[in-house]
Amino acid sequence: MSSANDPGLRSWIPVSEDSHFPIQNLPFGVFSVGGEQPRVGVAIGEFVLDLCALFESGKLRVQGLEENVFAASSLNPFIACGRSVWTDVRNTLSNLLREGSGELRDDASLRDRVLISRTDVRLHLPIEIADYVDFYSSEYHATNVGRMFRPDNPLMPNWKHLPVGYNGRSSSVVVSGTPIRRPMGQTKSDDAPAPSYGPSRLLDFELEVGFYVGVETALGSQLDVSRAESAIFGVCLVNDWSARDIQKWEYQPLGPFLSKSFGTSVSPWVVMLEAFEPFRCDGPVQDPAVLPYLSQSEPRGVDMNLEVWLKSASMTQPLKIAATNFKHMYWSMAQQLAHQTVNGTNLRIGDLYASGTVSGPTEFERGCMLELTWRGEQPIRLAETGEERKFLADGDEVTMTGWCQGQGYRVGFGEVTGQILPAIG
Amino acid sequence: MSSANDPGLRSWIPVSEDSHFPIQNLPFGVFSVGGEQPRVGVAIGEFVLDLCALFESGKLRVQGLEENVFAASSLNPFIACGRSVWTDVRNTLSNLLREGSGELRDDASLRDRVLISRTDVRLHLPIEIADYVDFYSSEYHATNVGRMFRPDNPLMPNWKHLPVGYNGRSSSVVVSGTPIRRPMGQTKSDDAPAPSYGPSRLLDFELEVGFYVGVETALGSQLDVSRAESAIFGVCLVNDWSARDIQKWEYQPLGPFLSKSFGTSVSPWVVMLEAFEPFRCDGPVQDPAVLPYLSQSEPRGVDMNLEVWLKSASMTQPLKIAATNFKHMYWSMAQQLAHQTVNGTNLRIGDLYASGTVSGPTEFERGCMLELTWRGEQPIRLAETGEERKFLADGDEVTMTGWCQGQGYRVGFGEVTGQILPAIG
Repeated sequence: MSSANDPGLRSWIPVSEDSHFPIQNLPFGVFSVGGEQPRVGVAIGEFVLDLCALFESGKLRVQGLEENVFAASSLNPFIACGRSVWTDVRNTLSNLLREGSGELRDDASLRDRVLISRTDVRLHLPIEIADYVDFYSSEYHATNVGRMFRPDNPLMPNWKHLPVGYNGRSSSVVVSGTPIRRPMGQTKSDDAPAPSYGPSRLLDFELEVGFYVGVETALGSQLDVSRAESAIFGVCLVNDWSARDIQKWEYQPLGPFLSKSFGTSVSPWVVMLEAFEPFRCDGPVQDPAVLPYLSQSEPRGVDMNLEVWLKSASMTQPLKIAATNFKHMYWSMAQQLAHQTVNGTNLRIGDLYASGTVSGPTEFERGCMLELTWRGEQPIRLAETGEERKFLADGDEVTMTGWCQGQGYRVGFGEVTGQILPAIG
Repeated sequence: MSSANDPGLRSWIPVSEDSHFPIQNLPFGVFSVGGEQPRVGVAIGEFVLDLCALFESGKLRVQGLEENVFAASSLNPFIACGRSVWTDVRNTLSNLLREGSGELRDDASLRDRVLISRTDVRLHLPIEIADYVDFYSSEYHATNVGRMFRPDNPLMPNWKHLPVGYNGRSSSVVVSGTPIRRPMGQTKSDDAPAPSYGPSRLLDFELEVGFYVGVETALGSQLDVSRAESAIFGVCLVNDWSARDIQKWEYQPLGPFLSKSFGTSVSPWVVMLEAFEPFRCDGPVQDPAVLPYLSQSEPRGVDMNLEVWLKSASMTQPLKIAATNFKHMYWSMAQQLAHQTVNGTNLRIGDLYASGTVSGPTEFERGCMLELTWRGEQPIRLAETGEERKFLADGDEVTMTGWCQGQGYRVGFGEVTGQILPAIG
């Protein structure tokens, strides 16, 4: 365990026990204040640490970091500096922020310049997305969805042999807080003779965890599963909004298209994979054994709590409607990347890979409305107002959160949230 | 018809009748000479006209073109200038190059500087790809493929109601001439108990025509079908290489993934959509009638000849193995874009949309090996060497070409070519 992850470490900045942003985390993001240019920062407690200003002050001295890559509207220039720079920056920040370190703490003028209250900043899409890929790696989710449509044969024959995935749309990946417009599109009910055009009636969220690639690889090369994690810059929360009625009509035979491309929300904070090291755990047993190119030694998983909260336009408080754990995922991030590159596909900085809906073994651990309400057959009751939900209604706000629980601290993403706007068209 | 398309127009640069690059075309590309920086050029006859040098000379005066956007390794900065600049540049070039115009013709020093023999240049990927989408818009192709797997029900019920498409991989789009490495991957024969790992044995090409988007639109907005073509910068040839055995095993239920992402080849020359105006034609009758958001007045189609040539490592000359026409496509480019944006998906400069395999009504008009050999049941005989092909072999070179035939001239792409390298892995 690197010292930056030391569970006993504390910062001179006060951080509550339930904050997602203790000194053990130090996630990267892009923020702006007022009308100023967006720049790179790190979350610590209730503050954003302005890395652009810190670099300019000369306090962020890291080999390989000659230019101010933090004066940018995305993390991509910083990521392009390479892993040793990412790690050195994180360690340098850890040293500046830890209890007993006076270099920044005792410089009131600098401190005021570089520490900004999180309530005063606007957070932006942190990374310029290259390709976006969505996997389907929860056995519980795939089995639940399969059972609805193929009761006798819920899992496809390929499912346990490879991490099923498909290419998504990069252009419509948006940062948490961006409203999501209910999509228009074609749908067809089973008894209708022809499709009709209108707003999606079966709008859903999908609770997912994503990772960003931090390297460029050459077309024609493979990434061995044992080295795949070294290609990962960091991890985020993802809400892969889905229009189930559009999906049902369009997806044969080439997969989901417009049912997914109207918006995908990501958390503003990107947690470096190494911040999750203390929370690694074994993944589910893989039986049958996977092919050698996918065979990964344990621990494959991350013990990460995930929750979904729903707030209708009439509610004053959000209601928790699902809670699960990322450790249930059958296929790991390393396996997903090894599979992605087995055919020679090249990776680029900013590639986003999402896990697929994270579901767990019990009913409350299901990561989308389709599963939670079982296609609408078991609506969710919103106790505060007495409303019911089969799928999402206009004005509904969906907020996901995720964190690993340490002894007296949490390492998390904050949240990814979005509100449904009524359709226009 | 704009004067730049005038069929009677001739250039003072000699252009043969079968050249794809007469003065009526003027396609854009990115080229370099020796170790110099790539820059933007236009093909004319056997030459590339160096727009970067022409701009510096002051002869390329167009309103809205203040900076030298041609000193770039992609067309994206030029495209970002907007349609009026694209059109004005094309018209200005047409005026400089037409018979009787002495401004460039009579300036020997400038002429030598800006006109470079095409044999002396290296051509690059012309556009930085944003999102890549592949459609499935040939009824002949979809029906042929469907017949192989579902004889009683070849076309899916959605096929005539919407242009079926899926998201592809942007990172692995390469320019013509780039070798294609046979992919490794998982395949499973019907009688095997489990999948196996190895080189794809059913490697295929797909003859397609693509277009690049030249505008940025806002997330949540729709592009009306009647205005969709105004969002298109230009058109290219596409070879969407496919591994049929990988595809068959992986594609359920989320569509093609690794079977397509190992490489997609595009022509180096991008033909502006307006150069195809004289070749517009009616598309196939759409029955049943499409929904209003897809309803486009004729002419929907383009009368464009397309050919595929194959040359094995043992052959001295390529053999033409297929010839078809783009006018057979059921769904038009405008319909594809209107469909893509009906759910509010935002477009970006550099989005690439490919048509799907272009096949026609007869056996020789089939745009991929899967159809041409009917899954390998009817191998193609390569007369020169007596070899047979069910799918592509290592060393095979596939060359596609496409052009519209005018009276005594052609408007075309040149070619898109690629040779299969043996698998490694």
